[in-house]
Amino acid sequence: MGHSRKSLFAPVERELSLVEKSIRAIADVEYPDLAELLGYIVNSGGKRVRPALTLLAGKLQNDPDLDILVPVATGVELLHTATLVHDDTIDLSPRRRGKPTVASIWGWGIATLAGDYLFSQAAELVSRASNIRADRLFAQTLMALCMGELQGNFSSYDQNQTRQSYFRNIGNKTASLFAMATESGAIVTAASEETIQALRSYGYKLGMAFQVVDDILDFTADEEELGKPVASDLRQGNLTLPAILLREQRPHDNPIEAIFENRQKERNLKLAIKMIRGSEVVPECYRIARDFTAEACTALEIFPESPYRQSLVEIANYVVERQE
Amino acid sequence: MGHSRKSLFAPVERELSLVEKSIRAIADVEYPDLAELLGYIVNSGGKRVRPALTLLAGKLQNDPDLDILVPVATGVELLHTATLVHDDTIDLSPRRRGKPTVASIWGWGIATLAGDYLFSQAAELVSRASNIRADRLFAQTLMALCMGELQGNFSSYDQNQTRQSYFRNIGNKTASLFAMATESGAIVTAASEETIQALRSYGYKLGMAFQVVDDILDFTADEEELGKPVASDLRQGNLTLPAILLREQRPHDNPIEAIFENRQKERNLKLAIKMIRGSEVVPECYRIARDFTAEACTALEIFPESPYRQSLVEIANYVVERQE
Repeated sequence: MGHSRKSLFAPVERELSLVEKSIRAIADVEYPDLAELLGYIVNSGGKRVRPALTLLAGKLQNDPDLDILVPVATGVELLHTATLVHDDTIDLSPRRRGKPTVASIWGWGIATLAGDYLFSQAAELVSRASNIRADRLFAQTLMALCMGELQGNFSSYDQNQTRQSYFRNIGNKTASLFAMATESGAIVTAASEETIQALRSYGYKLGMAFQVVDDILDFTADEEELGKPVASDLRQGNLTLPAILLREQRPHDNPIEAIFENRQKERNLKLAIKMIRGSEVVPECYRIARDFTAEACTALEIFPESPYRQSLVEIANYVVERQE
Repeated sequence: MGHSRKSLFAPVERELSLVEKSIRAIADVEYPDLAELLGYIVNSGGKRVRPALTLLAGKLQNDPDLDILVPVATGVELLHTATLVHDDTIDLSPRRRGKPTVASIWGWGIATLAGDYLFSQAAELVSRASNIRADRLFAQTLMALCMGELQGNFSSYDQNQTRQSYFRNIGNKTASLFAMATESGAIVTAASEETIQALRSYGYKLGMAFQVVDDILDFTADEEELGKPVASDLRQGNLTLPAILLREQRPHDNPIEAIFENRQKERNLKLAIKMIRGSEVVPECYRIARDFTAEACTALEIFPESPYRQSLVEIANYVVERQE
């Protein structure tokens, strides 16, 4: 996010630096080996979008208690980090954000345990708010995230992947955590039920848009920008929105079946990428993403003008404009 | 545990059947692939010692609410199950309780996600009690379990493994969950602070004894009884109590250094097993285990006579007498 991140998150810049400190503190453990492992993970960067959302949602209430809000925002980010560590381990990914993955350095046994440890840290940080509803939201979000990943794994190379199954899947694996980010910020600052629901809705729709754009970029960006091969999902037998729309638009003339059946796979992957880039699929996917962000922003209309509301609107716009 | 289990847990037999039902219910999911995977896991047996402890601890209070106690006991068991699924995945174990492990059937990617999903289910079940302290205990227990496993992985083949590091390690990887089992039963039935601490202490000491006996049996039982090779920890470079005592008793005349340096490993493993079996090491380890169970039972003295207290005493005795 570079420069834009600073201006996007400006109203919570100070609170975000407290979150950053709190993230780095989890590497302060007695055992040098473990401190090195955790230090590597927490210093591996990340845009910190999710904790920024928690902070902004919390700040919409008057004078929130930062001793509660900051640990919860940190827990949200560590939950995200834990899922990345496990995803990279399961996918055997060599690099993340330009650095070797935990599994590629420490092996997948340690990487699995490190992810588990981050889950426990996330749970502990959220539990510091002493808020039953936040604890329950944590458990339900973790369940949705795991369900989304399991669905994705079980349905790869399945020809019955549809728009409906795609939206359900990204709802679980991505939007659930964005929804938790904003909802938890509202819950632990004792917001009204109407506010909680509005912020949950904003987060969920934003997460849907975020994942749709991720899935567009997976076809339109080049390998260097992505830090991984283009069309990596299709390569693994998972149909994301661009591939699903391509199949809808050209049901009798697309290379997806051939890719699934491993016939001239590289040539057919190149063809699919070319067909998606050169068709109405990409603008249509962007239209769908913008519909989600429009719904996200509509949910914010109950709040009076404020720098925090403004920031949430700008994040929604950024999500569909970003190139990485 | 066979026949003895039934009589040991007799005072909570009815409640334990509700836990069993609740464990099996987690396989009731929409997706057939996932239902099959979860069904395999929840039908793989297990002695249900930990949920029995939660139920017995809860029943020490008058007329506990089973709609709270049963989900918490189920959560304790699923937390245990989740750690077994991940442990087997990390250790590449082919079998558990005589059946192929999840990883050996579905691969370690799915096995990792399945473990994560069980963690989320466990968190969700505990959160149903709407008890902040129980949620916090869950997070802290998960943290201790992961810390114990990470320590174990990092310290393998380390010559500096001592009694002290061993007790700290089994405190984290085993006793923490036994302590959670009994403490959570007390917490969610609104027990007094004195009761909570007594039951936590009982659970912790029982867990220490349980693991010491496990580590004795790893040397004294045969491969068929264990369902895995004898001395599996030593084989992987981890010193458990019998190996630590052997080294203490015969500092200049034991094969552990040779095993760690991979010199004639099989021959030296056989020698270590023979030396441990034929020495004062085994009775000394049992004495230590009995010290732990004696302390566990002392913690129960604040409670009046009851079938529940009696059952907890019998479980402590069983733990040091069991042969599997």
